[in-house]
Amino acid sequence: MAVYTPIGADDVREFLRHYDVGRATSFKGIAEGVENSNFYVETFDETAIPVSRQRFILTLYEKRVDPADLPWFLGLMRHVAAKGFRCAEPVAARDGALTGAIHGKPAALITFLPGLSVARPNVVEAAEAGRALAEFHLAAADYPLKRANALGPMAWREMGTRLRSKASVLDPGWAEILDRALALLAHWPTCLPAGPIHADFFPDNVFFLNNTFAGAIDFYFACNDFLAYDLAIALNAWAMDASGKPDRSMSAALLAAYHRVRPLLPAECAAFPLLAAGAALRFFLTRLMDWQESQGALVREKDPGEYARKLACHLAIARGVGSGPADANGIPDYGWNG
Amino acid sequence: MAVYTPIGADDVREFLRHYDVGRATSFKGIAEGVENSNFYVETFDETAIPVSRQRFILTLYEKRVDPADLPWFLGLMRHVAAKGFRCAEPVAARDGALTGAIHGKPAALITFLPGLSVARPNVVEAAEAGRALAEFHLAAADYPLKRANALGPMAWREMGTRLRSKASVLDPGWAEILDRALALLAHWPTCLPAGPIHADFFPDNVFFLNNTFAGAIDFYFACNDFLAYDLAIALNAWAMDASGKPDRSMSAALLAAYHRVRPLLPAECAAFPLLAAGAALRFFLTRLMDWQESQGALVREKDPGEYARKLACHLAIARGVGSGPADANGIPDYGWNG
Repeated sequence: MAVYTPIGADDVREFLRHYDVGRATSFKGIAEGVENSNFYVETFDETAIPVSRQRFILTLYEKRVDPADLPWFLGLMRHVAAKGFRCAEPVAARDGALTGAIHGKPAALITFLPGLSVARPNVVEAAEAGRALAEFHLAAADYPLKRANALGPMAWREMGTRLRSKASVLDPGWAEILDRALALLAHWPTCLPAGPIHADFFPDNVFFLNNTFAGAIDFYFACNDFLAYDLAIALNAWAMDASGKPDRSMSAALLAAYHRVRPLLPAECAAFPLLAAGAALRFFLTRLMDWQESQGALVREKDPGEYARKLACHLAIARGVGSGPADANGIPDYGWNG
Repeated sequence: MAVYTPIGADDVREFLRHYDVGRATSFKGIAEGVENSNFYVETFDETAIPVSRQRFILTLYEKRVDPADLPWFLGLMRHVAAKGFRCAEPVAARDGALTGAIHGKPAALITFLPGLSVARPNVVEAAEAGRALAEFHLAAADYPLKRANALGPMAWREMGTRLRSKASVLDPGWAEILDRALALLAHWPTCLPAGPIHADFFPDNVFFLNNTFAGAIDFYFACNDFLAYDLAIALNAWAMDASGKPDRSMSAALLAAYHRVRPLLPAECAAFPLLAAGAALRFFLTRLMDWQESQGALVREKDPGEYARKLACHLAIARGVGSGPADANGIPDYGWNG
């Protein structure tokens, strides 16, 4: 949520010379996306017929995004957008390139996506999010390039071992939660429907207009993994509060709406509690890492405790691995009614 | 340059209910203005004929702006805008109010001003800035309300005394510069043309389109004071670099363009070196204060040293107080040619 690299009008002017969008008439650093520097840019093209005014997001990729991955991310955004999925997408420069450079950092011009993210989504919005995520999975299914999940179970084991003592310093209960979660990874599924996943489908990355899904942003954690794992990430973010308490009506709305567009297989439902625990573990670990590394830096950190509590909740549910609860329709039910 | 108060779509929706602008279709925190939280807001009014899309800046006033001063600031913006001076201006709510509240903080909806600020202005832009500042002074001259300058000579004396030992810890040379500047204040002019001044007419607060002045923002240091003092603040910001070195062609462009719109009186020219020293002292002191108070906080500080060097430069010029150099046209010349 910060502008890391300050850029000036000259930088924008120089950058836009490579695009057919006219000249910049406004630009402002914006607080959007966690990892990159983003700028709101308005352009005016007096040579177009009719004259054209457009608005864009100019993104500068900071250190957490590997420039080698950019073609994969930007290509995925274009791929799903071409299939009708609403999302921000990169604009090609005159020579066809999707990225340029500003101050030596890779930069892309991204379409401006109208809509608002909601801090406290309601059930209508949760259902919209579920539907949209399923539509994203279907639209992305034939994206030909692959990108491994750098933040998957292998990484969790390594990070968990490395951060265990730090975790127990921050909260005495966290080491035990971590141990139980890591032990459960032995049962991690090996064969479920897979494909490109968003991997960060949190409410801040989903825009609405009038309670209707208006588009998704921030695809820079996207990778190939189990589709139901992506849904589990979303469930943790949309249907559990910061205290780790699940909201049954929100989860029902999210899961049922997803299921209507891409029906979940029995194997996915059975594995869901475990996937949800893994999804919570992933954010617990990365937040723990960020919490550790940036003390005193200029970034406001997210609380690892929120995901420790969500993880503990899923661990309780996942105790009987391979026999996750399901409702009459076979959708993970989670027994959140008691 | 930061969003201090995070707000959500619900807050914006609730706030906009008091305005005739339709509903929000986009909002993003932006890095604009030093002291307040600013948000880019797009609205869509489907009940208007024709349907209307607009964009605004929503400003939340943080602690450095006294809510009691807001009617003065916002009234000034409307006053000069009504006279044709291009600037951001507050939009009135349905009941006529220029401010509302979000999260208990005063908030205003401000018109979106197209244009770009330039990090390294050229002489054409410096001349435009000089012209615009003079036009602002003329447009504001009959604004009926008064607001004393809380950061004037009286405050400098108090701050200088309080911060002297801290200054000398940061740089051994600063205490002497401070002493010389404070001694010079005995000669501060008592009678020069006065009126509302912007008091922060830095390049970041001035927008351009195609090298032409496109509007001014951030009036939250505005107050009543000597008009030539406002010009001196601008001179320090536009015509001297961070090392304190004056740029003769930039100062000539700024001062001559100002002079063409509002001719400077001989008394203003004579006092100019002293006014410029005072203007440098003002920013040296506030930067010194901010530097001291916020170590470890989340704000990137501006370097007091830049203004210590500018101040030292003016002190050398102002040695013969009351007989500042002038060129053949009577415009302060500054002897920057040697």
